[in-house]
Amino acid sequence: MAPPPRHPRLLSLEGGEGAGKSTALASVRELLQRRGHEVVLTREPGGTPLAERIRTLLLGTRDTLRGEAEEEPLAAETELLLMFAARAQHVRHVVRPALRRGAFVVSDRFTDSSYAYQGDGRGLDRQWIADLERRAVGLRPGLTLLLDLDVREGRARTSGRDLWPDRIESEQDDFFERVRLGFRRRAQAEPERFRLVDAALPPPAVGEAVAGAVSAYLDTLTDADLA
Amino acid sequence: MAPPPRHPRLLSLEGGEGAGKSTALASVRELLQRRGHEVVLTREPGGTPLAERIRTLLLGTRDTLRGEAEEEPLAAETELLLMFAARAQHVRHVVRPALRRGAFVVSDRFTDSSYAYQGDGRGLDRQWIADLERRAVGLRPGLTLLLDLDVREGRARTSGRDLWPDRIESEQDDFFERVRLGFRRRAQAEPERFRLVDAALPPPAVGEAVAGAVSAYLDTLTDADLA
Ligand SMILES: Nc1ncnc2c1ncn2[C@@H]1O[C@H](COP(=O)(O)OP(=O)(O)OP(=O)(O)O)[C@@H](O)[C@H]1O
Ligand SMILES: Nc1ncnc2c1ncn2[C@@H]1O[C@H](COP(=O)(O)OP(=O)(O)OP(=O)(O)O)[C@@H](O)[C@H]1O
Ligand SMILES: [Mg+2]
Ligand SMILES: [Mg+2]
Repeated sequence: MAPPPRHPRLLSLEGGEGAGKSTALASVRELLQRRGHEVVLTREPGGTPLAERIRTLLLGTRDTLRGEAEEEPLAAETELLLMFAARAQHVRHVVRPALRRGAFVVSDRFTDSSYAYQGDGRGLDRQWIADLERRAVGLRPGLTLLLDLDVREGRARTSGRDLWPDRIESEQDDFFERVRLGFRRRAQAEPERFRLVDAALPPPAVGEAVAGAVSAYLDTLTDADLA
Repeated sequence: MAPPPRHPRLLSLEGGEGAGKSTALASVRELLQRRGHEVVLTREPGGTPLAERIRTLLLGTRDTLRGEAEEEPLAAETELLLMFAARAQHVRHVVRPALRRGAFVVSDRFTDSSYAYQGDGRGLDRQWIADLERRAVGLRPGLTLLLDLDVREGRARTSGRDLWPDRIESEQDDFFERVRLGFRRRAQAEPERFRLVDAALPPPAVGEAVAGAVSAYLDTLTDADLA
């Protein structure tokens, strides 16, 4: 089964917790705008009002995380289906409309996160994820920046949030190690799409690496890709 | 691809809007209890705290239905994935645990509703639904009572709710005609599992038909089925 086609103006940022994805978004936007492109920044899970409601379901609320809402644990299968429900909505109501009018879309996480977290992390069948990607998403980014970082270093960076971790942040290190390996394997398997960024560098150096990768990528695009 | 196995103690009630599913539940419970069985009544979408939150997302809230919440329409694919997310959760946290301890589970709607509403109604690929059923659900009812009713008659019965229809109730008649036909085709294709009930009869007669069908079904079960 062939993967869905890559769209040249869809870019994604991937990586583990605290790797610096959200921080790197600013560098990508700046570069694209400097080159005169319209840019839509978005994120997953979420990106539309309804998908953000699904995100709340997925990551938990104060009451559910505290165990005060009498809510049962989320089954891995439920988590996967909610992720793709949010993504189906995001793609149809934000990503595709923006691409159709010629904009660049930069997403803080996209389908690769489901392969890494629900596939490698939770152990769900990769073929199922591939089928959901084909049916519910139907496109891949033209460029994916993988911010690769030691799991503990990422945890240390987000330690301010440790007092109030969401459902996924509450996982153990071995879960995040599987996620990290999953991301790296995907990057190796699809070198045309992925650029690996050493996220252990200080913020300005990561910003430069990210901007450099995007810049080099833009230089490969044709006029047709930009229309 | 073979469908998932039927579980003898899982029963479902299916049919269009206002056909009398929720009303019929009482007759089924009464009969099962009179025969000395533990009965768990449940419903879909929903049946667990988290799945009920997904139900709210699916059917809309006062604000989203009024258009006051700035929420975009639900894509058909999103609807299907949310239905199966709720079902995955329902099966793992309510249905299977009850079946494991020997109880009967009677569900007001189950997977057949997704084939009829999201498949026949929305036009989504039946193979996709079958794959989700296999991966996220993994079992079928031993007995499914299909309450079959003229679409307009069903609408007339629920006219008290017409002032405040949910996302699905707001569909047009042709949608519900496709749903009705979809249910009937499924019943024809799987006569061992389905019993068709004429839901146009007055309530006591429907109750009797339902109880009679369940009673005859129970008589076919072995001691192993009941353990
Ligand atoms: N290269 C860096 N070196 C050190 N700290 C960084 C670096 N990049 C970001 N940070 C800091 O680490 C924290 C996490 O960064 P950020 O929120 O961008 O990560 P993220 O990958 O988006 O995390 P999450 O997966 O939780 O969304 C922030 O406090 C940020 O300021
Ligand atoms: N056999 C019947 N004849 C006439 N009215 C009925 C009959 N069965 C139920 N009703 C009435 O029709 C309305 C709808 O019944 P009910 O709620 O049981 O249907 P339902 O199939 O569960 O509907 P929904 O799909 O909306 O959940 C109720 O007001 C109920 O009292
Ligand atoms: Mg972030
Ligand atoms: Mg009902």
